[in-house]
Amino acid sequence: MTSTITTAAGTTDNVGGLDLGPAVALSCRECGNRVDLGPYYACSECFGPLEVSYEFTLAREELRRAIERGPQNIWRYAPLLPVPAGIADTPNINPGCTKLVRADNLARELGLKRLWVKDDSGNPTHSFKDRVVAVALAAARELGFSVLACPSTGNLANAVAAAAARAGIRSVVLIPSNLEQQKILTTAAYGGTLVAVEGNYDDINRLAGEIAAEQDDWAFVNVNVRPYYAEGSKTLAYEVAEQLGWRLPQQVVVPIASGAQLVKIDKGFTELGNLGLVEPTPYRVFGAQATGCAPVAHAFKDGHDTVRPVRPDTIAKSLAIGNPADGPYVLDTVRRTGGAIEDVSDDEVIEGIKLLARTEGIFAETAGGVTVATLRKLLATGQLDPEAETVIFNTGDGLKTLDAIADVVGPTATIAPTLKAFDAAGLA
Amino acid sequence: MTSTITTAAGTTDNVGGLDLGPAVALSCRECGNRVDLGPYYACSECFGPLEVSYEFTLAREELRRAIERGPQNIWRYAPLLPVPAGIADTPNINPGCTKLVRADNLARELGLKRLWVKDDSGNPTHSFKDRVVAVALAAARELGFSVLACPSTGNLANAVAAAAARAGIRSVVLIPSNLEQQKILTTAAYGGTLVAVEGNYDDINRLAGEIAAEQDDWAFVNVNVRPYYAEGSKTLAYEVAEQLGWRLPQQVVVPIASGAQLVKIDKGFTELGNLGLVEPTPYRVFGAQATGCAPVAHAFKDGHDTVRPVRPDTIAKSLAIGNPADGPYVLDTVRRTGGAIEDVSDDEVIEGIKLLARTEGIFAETAGGVTVATLRKLLATGQLDPEAETVIFNTGDGLKTLDAIADVVGPTATIAPTLKAFDAAGLA
Repeated sequence: MTSTITTAAGTTDNVGGLDLGPAVALSCRECGNRVDLGPYYACSECFGPLEVSYEFTLAREELRRAIERGPQNIWRYAPLLPVPAGIADTPNINPGCTKLVRADNLARELGLKRLWVKDDSGNPTHSFKDRVVAVALAAARELGFSVLACPSTGNLANAVAAAAARAGIRSVVLIPSNLEQQKILTTAAYGGTLVAVEGNYDDINRLAGEIAAEQDDWAFVNVNVRPYYAEGSKTLAYEVAEQLGWRLPQQVVVPIASGAQLVKIDKGFTELGNLGLVEPTPYRVFGAQATGCAPVAHAFKDGHDTVRPVRPDTIAKSLAIGNPADGPYVLDTVRRTGGAIEDVSDDEVIEGIKLLARTEGIFAETAGGVTVATLRKLLATGQLDPEAETVIFNTGDGLKTLDAIADVVGPTATIAPTLKAFDAAGLA
Repeated sequence: MTSTITTAAGTTDNVGGLDLGPAVALSCRECGNRVDLGPYYACSECFGPLEVSYEFTLAREELRRAIERGPQNIWRYAPLLPVPAGIADTPNINPGCTKLVRADNLARELGLKRLWVKDDSGNPTHSFKDRVVAVALAAARELGFSVLACPSTGNLANAVAAAAARAGIRSVVLIPSNLEQQKILTTAAYGGTLVAVEGNYDDINRLAGEIAAEQDDWAFVNVNVRPYYAEGSKTLAYEVAEQLGWRLPQQVVVPIASGAQLVKIDKGFTELGNLGLVEPTPYRVFGAQATGCAPVAHAFKDGHDTVRPVRPDTIAKSLAIGNPADGPYVLDTVRRTGGAIEDVSDDEVIEGIKLLARTEGIFAETAGGVTVATLRKLLATGQLDPEAETVIFNTGDGLKTLDAIADVVGPTATIAPTLKAFDAAGLA
């Protein structure tokens, strides 16, 4: 392989004997061209992105029983994912089944009738990235890769290093060399190969593509096995529906980085409806961005079908993708379902973090602050229906972005260690 | 109330109409004196510590069905806890049902036949403290308290602030004013009352007792509602047994701070055996301490029944209790079950953190490092049977103690952003 884009025309030797469960092919999201399953991510006809296609064979009741009998992690949905049937018994990080928190305090404060927070900070490395990495790892093994790799500046790096450690395989994680010490430590702890690259994220992303083309047995989770990786986000939709008692919410608010998560949540809901696991009731999908990196929100508001790249400048670093690959598909999804996309300032993000922590005891990373603040803005501008049942997604953990709140929270008072000092401070 | 020790003789007006589930009384662990349920923690006869006593009324099959039908959190064990029957529907942080990870890689590296890690970093605020606080909150409400409070230097502060926020009640958390900024932020985020006290942990602990005596409606979780609080740790035992398919492990290794967790895990296993939910097969309980704060390990090795207090000096700050309240009960439990107590140096703690992360993808706080390093030492010294199925408890999250590994992990290499530089570094 000599190109940084591997197309299905390149090789076909990995196809025979693959067990990727109900996955039967990869399909181009642009031209619809179908190719065999394999380590491909770009269409050989039009270079459009490839996506996993399925043939689901289990009947509704059988499927529901299989899920409900399954383990308390994403592998309960193995019959709906591109993974081998026996995946639950293979060493992996086993994310998922995170809490769906009924957020009555926050709902009351915002004037919403019923609100839930899907809190993915409960995953093994405390972000939703564990879901996509777990599926990528499962597929990568089946496709014959022996190293798990990624370029990342944070959550993905943690997830890849941890999952590879559990699986007993090598990880190679590329990070910018000027990353905060804290983020370096949380990945280095797992003992894989951690490469600090003297460049920005664009530089390491490009380098990852070049290495992927050179190292035939390295699976860069978000590059050459991206079609499988992205499917992991469907499990957010499955879990929400099952946790609601096998039904769909009326509105969801999802943060947008590449946009894949939002698109896959919609895909998950649609699949459940088609399979008869839920009534296919209508739902509206809303997107959330930080104003400092809001290319999809701008396109939505301007009525465009394509997304003009921006240079990110926001504290919400895990959402700071200036040229989001799934941007056009996000626009499709949001418009088709009657949703909207809003963006919020960094100050609003911090207020969002504080609001969620104060009302629900959930300490979110900046991406969660974006989502909460966007929920508030969508309500204030009348775009979101306060009477309709709503689910918002918290995709990460405040412990990883402490700097964001360092200047705005602190002790209520500082006192001498005496009851007299305590009483005098008026804290009772 | 004018004394810092509230005894059962003080008041009895809270007793009538209490719904604390199967809890029927408080019993002195020293003299056996029984008193009515209430906000008491010291025996009116001998000032010994009080403990919750139960009358379990459900038959074995009924109980097991109730548990298995219950929610995926500690409230599935409500029939075995001092909480109202309807607790699962009351706003709370709902911890528990954390993963029991089959640790084959670590087992192989240490030469153990079968090893599991009960990983409590998956709790809402990423430590086992969420369990005890959740039970304390439930009991505190039933006992008529309106404020949730604690003295703490870390995990407990996070848990109290978060649980109170979810419950919609006020929290008051006392911390030493010289605490690391990072630990202040993670508690301040939840927006309760956070009081920085110019003193050490002993000072704030004493101050908490004085405030508790003055503020009748404040529940200091680890002071005046401690008997209920401590019962939360039983859920670790219940979960391990259920996750193993309703059976007991042969050996457990538990970190020791106050010692309550170790004692309550034994209590939980014993209850399950008595109730017929598991075969009452023998198990050995092992304790883990850091050498810089190892009063219980010293007492064990010296053959003493009492524990001589020490001044802590270890990086394992969440275990640094120099005068552990449950020390004598820990000695009883470990000796009765044929276990042992070991202690490990801070260097061994760091090696333990790295070993667990590298082999199982679990990034533990220093307390987890103590437990892993102790497991290794117990094996090396022949005190722990490598053929017997073993469960170790990881009680917290490495994200909260990053400083511990800051000097010992880091990037494998730093390179220019080119394929040539990557190839030259010999990383492939």
